[in-house]
Amino acid sequence: MPSTNRQVRLAARPSGLPRPTDWEFTSEPAPAPGAGEFVVGVTHLSIDPAMRGWMNAGRSYVPPVDIGAVMRAGGIGRVTASEHPGFAVGDYVSGTFGVQEYCVSDGRGVLKLDTSLAEPTVYLGVLGATGLTAYFGLLDTGRLKEGDTVVVSGAAGAVGSVAGQIAKIKGGRVIGIAGGPEKCRLVTEEFGFDAAIDYRAPHLRRTLREFAPRGVDVYFDNVGGEILDDVLACIARGARIVICGAVSQYNESEVRGPANYMMLLVARASMTGMLVFDYADRYPEAMAELAGWYRAGRLVSRETVVSGSVEDFPETLLKLFEGANTGKMILAL
Amino acid sequence: MPSTNRQVRLAARPSGLPRPTDWEFTSEPAPAPGAGEFVVGVTHLSIDPAMRGWMNAGRSYVPPVDIGAVMRAGGIGRVTASEHPGFAVGDYVSGTFGVQEYCVSDGRGVLKLDTSLAEPTVYLGVLGATGLTAYFGLLDTGRLKEGDTVVVSGAAGAVGSVAGQIAKIKGGRVIGIAGGPEKCRLVTEEFGFDAAIDYRAPHLRRTLREFAPRGVDVYFDNVGGEILDDVLACIARGARIVICGAVSQYNESEVRGPANYMMLLVARASMTGMLVFDYADRYPEAMAELAGWYRAGRLVSRETVVSGSVEDFPETLLKLFEGANTGKMILAL
Repeated sequence: MPSTNRQVRLAARPSGLPRPTDWEFTSEPAPAPGAGEFVVGVTHLSIDPAMRGWMNAGRSYVPPVDIGAVMRAGGIGRVTASEHPGFAVGDYVSGTFGVQEYCVSDGRGVLKLDTSLAEPTVYLGVLGATGLTAYFGLLDTGRLKEGDTVVVSGAAGAVGSVAGQIAKIKGGRVIGIAGGPEKCRLVTEEFGFDAAIDYRAPHLRRTLREFAPRGVDVYFDNVGGEILDDVLACIARGARIVICGAVSQYNESEVRGPANYMMLLVARASMTGMLVFDYADRYPEAMAELAGWYRAGRLVSRETVVSGSVEDFPETLLKLFEGANTGKMILAL
Repeated sequence: MPSTNRQVRLAARPSGLPRPTDWEFTSEPAPAPGAGEFVVGVTHLSIDPAMRGWMNAGRSYVPPVDIGAVMRAGGIGRVTASEHPGFAVGDYVSGTFGVQEYCVSDGRGVLKLDTSLAEPTVYLGVLGATGLTAYFGLLDTGRLKEGDTVVVSGAAGAVGSVAGQIAKIKGGRVIGIAGGPEKCRLVTEEFGFDAAIDYRAPHLRRTLREFAPRGVDVYFDNVGGEILDDVLACIARGARIVICGAVSQYNESEVRGPANYMMLLVARASMTGMLVFDYADRYPEAMAELAGWYRAGRLVSRETVVSGSVEDFPETLLKLFEGANTGKMILAL
């Protein structure tokens, strides 16, 4: 049994990008399970843009991480000790274990992973909250129809790469927006989008008009900012804009609101926010469909895995905001 | 028969508020009807915030008014000459007749008015596009449910005053936002809203939180700008924001986008643009319901009527943007 549990705690609420002083590294005795509990040895941490929002005070869809608390994080791991009838030592599990080496759990919100179907890390990507967010965002909030022209921002990222692939499977014409030629190549060649636009190149709006001459029916937005305004300028009548994230704005002190939002009126379009948690009762149907596509090789899972310890978490999070990842960003402990 | 038809034409595309040099006053021989046509003597012009948008170049929901063309305007009038079997001299009609004294028409888009039910001017307000916009915006786009907390901006204005009244009839708790104590008094006393907030007073957001402690379920937005951000900060889970207009932004060179738009995600809410024209096939049902409420005294029609000639149009339009009107702004010729 390990004797210590290293942890990363929130020391201060950041302004802009998190700095080293916003974190505190602590160590405490490794936990032992009580009755009805088990201990997870965390093997992989999910590194998500949403983490930046959890560090802020104020109203959001989950409470802020308290100052001094272990930083919230999704992850996967193996059960190392158990006093719980439903979880045995050696089981692979996923859950919100936090940025720490060991987590004690009573099983609430923890899923056992079927490692015969896929590698454990895939359960942080295509077969996890990432895949489910793409699935419900596109099909439910975005009401994708066959033949729709779909635009996905953050197209080489975790949710975006899955959203684009699902849109293709469901009969959409899919344009990805990503940063740099290498990511754009990946978007078309590996993820199978019909086209990719490098937002760092000039004239995004003009290029988008060329690729979507009849307008954009569904926009799956992970980035916000100027790109959201560019896509708004190109929407088709009745377009659905899915607000999944706004990674370009999470570290800004003043959010840039979409100045072109009156295109919603011109095009009789909608902009709707979504959170995957609201679909918990439909996870099984979605997981079945996602797993089917994954097994059939129609859905590619891509992860960027950084190896390190929990102390590497702050730097890995910064890498995410630099766009260093393709697909899901994971810190392997 | 009159010999001349005075007209107001668009001379230049304005930047900011329209200036006198953006208009041209012309006069031409009064038209005579051809076969299948009739002539309308315009008696009242509808003065609408949307007019400012029609003066701009670029994509919108209708083509821009061409430079040199008679300014587009809805209005009502009486048939002064007719070679059309469906329209007789003396009939009251409404239609898009333009800012001019006489308009020749083949009857397309022209409605005959039932003056036994209401004064002709009511057909520019509660029983016209104004009332229909409020009706479909609130009930269809806004999906108002009994018990919803509803906020309406521009609450003393044409569409806003009707939207709030319909929300009350349908069982909503209705808060109006208007400019100044006199308009706020009108909003509660004459239009029957449950509460009114003066946006010129400080702490709009705080006051709104006090009046809507469980959050705003439906926001019917006519104004955009800072007020939209204030309401976004107060929305309830699953809120519907109806984008009907953005009068605060129409004369700005740079539109202020809603910086709080990520509240759509936090609250799983939507923001949807609407245009009344899309509901043309449902006008009869809506008109029947609106007329029923009007006859029963449950729906108050309020108009601000300025008397003058077509040459007074530019100044009357500016008065609208100063907020000089309560209810529908009308120029009576």
